[in-house]
Amino acid sequence: MSLIVQKYGGTSVGSTDRIKYVAKRVMHWRGLGHQVVVVVSAMSGETNRLLGLAKELSAAPDPRELDVVAATGEQVTIGLLSIALMEMGVPARSYSGGQVRVLTDSAFTKARILDIDDAAMRRDLDAGNVVVVAGFQGVDAVGNVTTLGRGGSDTSAVALAAALGADECQIYTDVDGVYTTDPRIVPQARRLDTITFEEMLELASQGSKVLQIRAVEFAGKYRVKLRVLSSFEDPQSPGPGTLITYEEDDTMEQAIISGIAFNRDEARILVMGVEDRPGVAFAILGPIAAANIDVDMIVQNIGASGQTDLSFTVHRNEYRKAMDVLERERGRAFQCREIKGDDKIAKVSVVGIGMRSHTGLAARMFKALADEAINIQMISTSEIKIAVVIDEKYLELAVRELHKAFDLEKAPA
Amino acid sequence: MSLIVQKYGGTSVGSTDRIKYVAKRVMHWRGLGHQVVVVVSAMSGETNRLLGLAKELSAAPDPRELDVVAATGEQVTIGLLSIALMEMGVPARSYSGGQVRVLTDSAFTKARILDIDDAAMRRDLDAGNVVVVAGFQGVDAVGNVTTLGRGGSDTSAVALAAALGADECQIYTDVDGVYTTDPRIVPQARRLDTITFEEMLELASQGSKVLQIRAVEFAGKYRVKLRVLSSFEDPQSPGPGTLITYEEDDTMEQAIISGIAFNRDEARILVMGVEDRPGVAFAILGPIAAANIDVDMIVQNIGASGQTDLSFTVHRNEYRKAMDVLERERGRAFQCREIKGDDKIAKVSVVGIGMRSHTGLAARMFKALADEAINIQMISTSEIKIAVVIDEKYLELAVRELHKAFDLEKAPA
Repeated sequence: MSLIVQKYGGTSVGSTDRIKYVAKRVMHWRGLGHQVVVVVSAMSGETNRLLGLAKELSAAPDPRELDVVAATGEQVTIGLLSIALMEMGVPARSYSGGQVRVLTDSAFTKARILDIDDAAMRRDLDAGNVVVVAGFQGVDAVGNVTTLGRGGSDTSAVALAAALGADECQIYTDVDGVYTTDPRIVPQARRLDTITFEEMLELASQGSKVLQIRAVEFAGKYRVKLRVLSSFEDPQSPGPGTLITYEEDDTMEQAIISGIAFNRDEARILVMGVEDRPGVAFAILGPIAAANIDVDMIVQNIGASGQTDLSFTVHRNEYRKAMDVLERERGRAFQCREIKGDDKIAKVSVVGIGMRSHTGLAARMFKALADEAINIQMISTSEIKIAVVIDEKYLELAVRELHKAFDLEKAPA
Repeated sequence: MSLIVQKYGGTSVGSTDRIKYVAKRVMHWRGLGHQVVVVVSAMSGETNRLLGLAKELSAAPDPRELDVVAATGEQVTIGLLSIALMEMGVPARSYSGGQVRVLTDSAFTKARILDIDDAAMRRDLDAGNVVVVAGFQGVDAVGNVTTLGRGGSDTSAVALAAALGADECQIYTDVDGVYTTDPRIVPQARRLDTITFEEMLELASQGSKVLQIRAVEFAGKYRVKLRVLSSFEDPQSPGPGTLITYEEDDTMEQAIISGIAFNRDEARILVMGVEDRPGVAFAILGPIAAANIDVDMIVQNIGASGQTDLSFTVHRNEYRKAMDVLERERGRAFQCREIKGDDKIAKVSVVGIGMRSHTGLAARMFKALADEAINIQMISTSEIKIAVVIDEKYLELAVRELHKAFDLEKAPA
């Protein structure tokens, strides 16, 4: 008997029919003799509806109260799924984040999990119940409702799996695994049987929508065995999905490049002609961070004649805000010649653990783009990733050409 | 400075525009220097939507899980109202039932309040905040979410007012007070400036929809000053509404009859030819109670030749279930000649504290009905009420004629 944590996202619980389908799937795994903890999101559209109501009342709703409103979405789903399970004769019991209790800090709308009490869940599991937990939410030390931020249900599931020492954490999505890239753009994209945590981390942070980055980090930290599966397959005969492995695992495919990730959600900002002195990056990016704007890529070239250019990317939704912050701070926190921005960009990344031991991959990437006359605006690299920023209109073309250039349609030998 | 508890029902918070209107009203009272605790229901339609989802999954959803789902309705409203108040510059803080904490028993879907912790609310009020509390809900001793049953937000408000020793508990509805009867049926119906708790209790239990009966009982028990007001009037100049007084108060109008209540939600069941012996009423009604069916009127006549007839009314929704229980128990718990039922009935009641000291009121009531040839099927009386069951189709006629017969369109001298 294993202990399995399963997570179902908003689409998987988007209607009462879909919820029944989830209940059947849970029943299948329980029928195999496993203990099952199910983590669910709000029904699809529900979180947006709730946040929309709040936005009708205030352009900048109080974060504590926003969490009170948003957390109800998952609370509805846990009750409904428990009802569906019991209707099928499967004993079930729901838990809100506060009931578990999932203790978080007090950073409303983007709280971090500090601790999980597994006592009540364990009692229920030992009594033969399926335990149904609201994802995305917790409580702080004084009992305020908190949410983990959008997509946080993945993180909830992994954190629960870690706290319970689960044998596997299954993330059910609308795809049957992790692909070499988005099959809607490249029909030849191939499902990976396994992928390393490090690669998954890069793929997730680069915009592969399958898993939330924090969930992957969490899973890596606590060595939670994570599997991505489809919630649309026959509940009685699920496919293998994609298992996320640790680098040192023997099962690793050892592909050089695992996949092509991309992201259309960013905007690029260029601060030109700043003084090339220590502290200038902080002078520019400090106010951005203080305004709670997340920065992704940061590129700074060595400047000539005491001046340099700094460019970075932010989420497209925060582009305006970031530009306003810079205009306000210009002449105060820092001096510069010009500030320019572009929100019609896309980021494309080549990700692979084999990059560490293989050379010439960047050149191969740049050549593939050059062959299509796609201009590279920014380049940033990590140990297992090369990311470039290009004009948004070339995104699909770039992804297709890179997928071909790295032979990703073929399984590794 | 007074401490005021205000309660707003589903219609009053039915849209974000209505919520803004409520926020203005709260701001008005706070501007007068009062501390304000606001108790809110779910947005109108929301509770039905949520229960509907549960019903799609199970004909008899697990009550614990049903409460988990239903309680989210009020939780959304407290967050939204707090956001609206803060947008107007009024500091506010929301509390779910569990956060207050409103301790209840574990009778899911119809829990009773056992205790209320006022410490956190008091801290917030003293800090200058408006406190916004989710009505209709609480938690049991082990932290399960409970609901008080439909309309329970009134009870929540009164219980909070009692716990806080509030100076007044204002119940905002879609009417501007308690009327002598429903103005939709009798246009001459008159708003009462005051009404006694006892009369209100009878009016509420007889189907006047203004206040929930448990709320009135609670208010009477803890001597909470209760006022019914309209949430549709100008927030800056609210009308006086109807104050619910205690019998011994000097302000009482001393009208003989305060109003005509009616109820279309009942069905009548007649058990004929039962043995006239001690315990037979329990033998019949015991199984009904055991099936959790509430019985309202019970009438038993002295029988001839050792047999008697027992008739009683139940909620129309439970008519089928009650008949099934009786058919099942017939010949086991009790013997009878025949069981008959009718769900096309209505109950009409004349209510007034003056009834205690005035005679001939029953005769006046029966004459008014007889003049219109309306047959009386059951009669039941209390100290301050005479209730009759009649054919449903005569309901409006009966209410109009009784309103006239007791001169209710005129204010008492």
